[in-house]
Amino acid sequence: MIPVKGYAAQNSTTPLAPWNFERRDVGPKDVHIDILYCGVCHSDIHQARDEWGGSIFPMVPGHEIVGRVKKVGKDVTNFNVGDLAGVGCFIDSCRVCDSCKADLQPYCEKGMNATYNGYEKDGKTPTYGGYSSQIVVDENYVLHVSDKLSLERVGPLLCAGITTYSPIMHWKIGNGHRVGVLGLGGLGHMAVKFAASLGSEVTVLSTTKSKEADAKKLGAHSFIHTKDDSQMNSVKRHFDFIIDTVSAEHDLNTYLNLLRRDGAHIVVGVPPTATPVDHFSLIGGRKTLAGSLIGGIKETQEMLDFCAERKIMSDVEVIAIKDINKAYERMMKNDVKYRFVIDMSTL
Amino acid sequence: MIPVKGYAAQNSTTPLAPWNFERRDVGPKDVHIDILYCGVCHSDIHQARDEWGGSIFPMVPGHEIVGRVKKVGKDVTNFNVGDLAGVGCFIDSCRVCDSCKADLQPYCEKGMNATYNGYEKDGKTPTYGGYSSQIVVDENYVLHVSDKLSLERVGPLLCAGITTYSPIMHWKIGNGHRVGVLGLGGLGHMAVKFAASLGSEVTVLSTTKSKEADAKKLGAHSFIHTKDDSQMNSVKRHFDFIIDTVSAEHDLNTYLNLLRRDGAHIVVGVPPTATPVDHFSLIGGRKTLAGSLIGGIKETQEMLDFCAERKIMSDVEVIAIKDINKAYERMMKNDVKYRFVIDMSTL
Repeated sequence: MIPVKGYAAQNSTTPLAPWNFERRDVGPKDVHIDILYCGVCHSDIHQARDEWGGSIFPMVPGHEIVGRVKKVGKDVTNFNVGDLAGVGCFIDSCRVCDSCKADLQPYCEKGMNATYNGYEKDGKTPTYGGYSSQIVVDENYVLHVSDKLSLERVGPLLCAGITTYSPIMHWKIGNGHRVGVLGLGGLGHMAVKFAASLGSEVTVLSTTKSKEADAKKLGAHSFIHTKDDSQMNSVKRHFDFIIDTVSAEHDLNTYLNLLRRDGAHIVVGVPPTATPVDHFSLIGGRKTLAGSLIGGIKETQEMLDFCAERKIMSDVEVIAIKDINKAYERMMKNDVKYRFVIDMSTL
Repeated sequence: MIPVKGYAAQNSTTPLAPWNFERRDVGPKDVHIDILYCGVCHSDIHQARDEWGGSIFPMVPGHEIVGRVKKVGKDVTNFNVGDLAGVGCFIDSCRVCDSCKADLQPYCEKGMNATYNGYEKDGKTPTYGGYSSQIVVDENYVLHVSDKLSLERVGPLLCAGITTYSPIMHWKIGNGHRVGVLGLGGLGHMAVKFAASLGSEVTVLSTTKSKEADAKKLGAHSFIHTKDDSQMNSVKRHFDFIIDTVSAEHDLNTYLNLLRRDGAHIVVGVPPTATPVDHFSLIGGRKTLAGSLIGGIKETQEMLDFCAERKIMSDVEVIAIKDINKAYERMMKNDVKYRFVIDMSTL
């Protein structure tokens, strides 16, 4: 076993604190990674505080992991010692269901093996995430990271990035489309970058008027303050696609009315309660309401390569691991542009 | 002006009764049709009773019209006297918006001109429907009807038929797909016929257990009684598509869970209140909830030709016009297999 330093929640009410634990030895197909940076996702807070139920403690959060390969198993063919490497939201899956065979592991029929707050394929060994010094992962679930990217800005691509990139690819959103991005946080700021990079005309829709300047800096062509009725009326039947990153309650029918005929509203956030949908909002313009998870390993690699080629990275604030609890408090107030990333050398 | 006999509601509370009115003279592009049969759509009742608000009285309902051309205007090129002809839910539209130019008149940005309970393009002359002896319609909004079809069984194709055919075509539902049809009424029975004819494996999902035998007679391969939990569990993640024809309240999340990854639930009915959708029901399998109206003129003609080729017709009960109020009462109890059609020679 490999001794590892990390930060963990011992239960749902205590702050995160240093915790030493062990990783498995490096198996024949495993890659052993020294973690350099780990992004802080809002779902880390939900899970560390057991807000979704079923949390497994002690919990080492973190699924936006970037590091350097320290060792490889004897049958590893795809990684060499010294390579840059990334690990996202899952570290394994059943590999045999239709979704796994279609490179869509997040939709694995047995459920993907989450990077933390889950279990290894044995169904009993808890998984521990990236707020730690090292990780050991099967090479099939490890991503290559280009040295063209600023490493501290890569981690959030593995969750916030792929969550928005995947629906953009699946629905073939691109050149000439009018795209609304609802919500400008960790997910939204990546959706803006991707859609703008692909030639879409991007509008940020936000409840917070003061985000307009930032939206445009990120690449948005226009901004709609959603509390301003006249601004909202100006984009009725306007969008081909809306990428909805909001996980607070909001009225979907309002946004369905902003779509053109055959437009699609794609949700990637999960509000706490079900959202009432008026069937006529869908029928009236043959509209689609759809949802999407993160992408599979193949698509995540494609996204990282796309980002390397186009120099697309997350906007981040780098913190020391000792400041993680403070970072959580700031995230609760949406006070971050747009992702915290832990510099793991501070561990 | 052309004197016409019909049946009309004089206001929202009186039964339908004989009423004589006038149609416009036959203009250069008009087709004058002697009506042979007119189907009775559930929306006729809603509108005659002003249940959706804004009804225009006197009202002559009926938008499932089949007849024979009696006269054509001098510039009509597409119809000859003696041709069989059909008129569906609309008799005109703006003709210049993107939807009209794309042959998708039901999505006309100015609103299509409804066959009844609407206005002609002048915006002030009320339109009167097919519970009448004759109708005059611009040839661009008239359909050709094949003499291979039993004429009394054609009318409902123009509303119930096209409402289910159009989404089947748009979402490319066909050979090899597992298709659920939710609700077995006027719309549902046509959805079963179309999907089965196109090679899909069709399952009827119904709250009414006794509909099983009929479902299979219509072409369904299997039947699920939706109140039986074990039957419902047996089709979890089963369907590629569900065509939802139900206009009563029902829980969409239950049905979204019956879809496979990337499956689509397509609503063509409008329940009285908005339906709560749990975002995770969509996100978990990258699923789609979509809506669809009737099709445009071009697609409606394609459907009629498809029906003629494959001998697909509605299952109907033919009634005399004097029995229309009794028919409405029976429809309120879902006591019809599957559409009433008025024999207009009884007028």
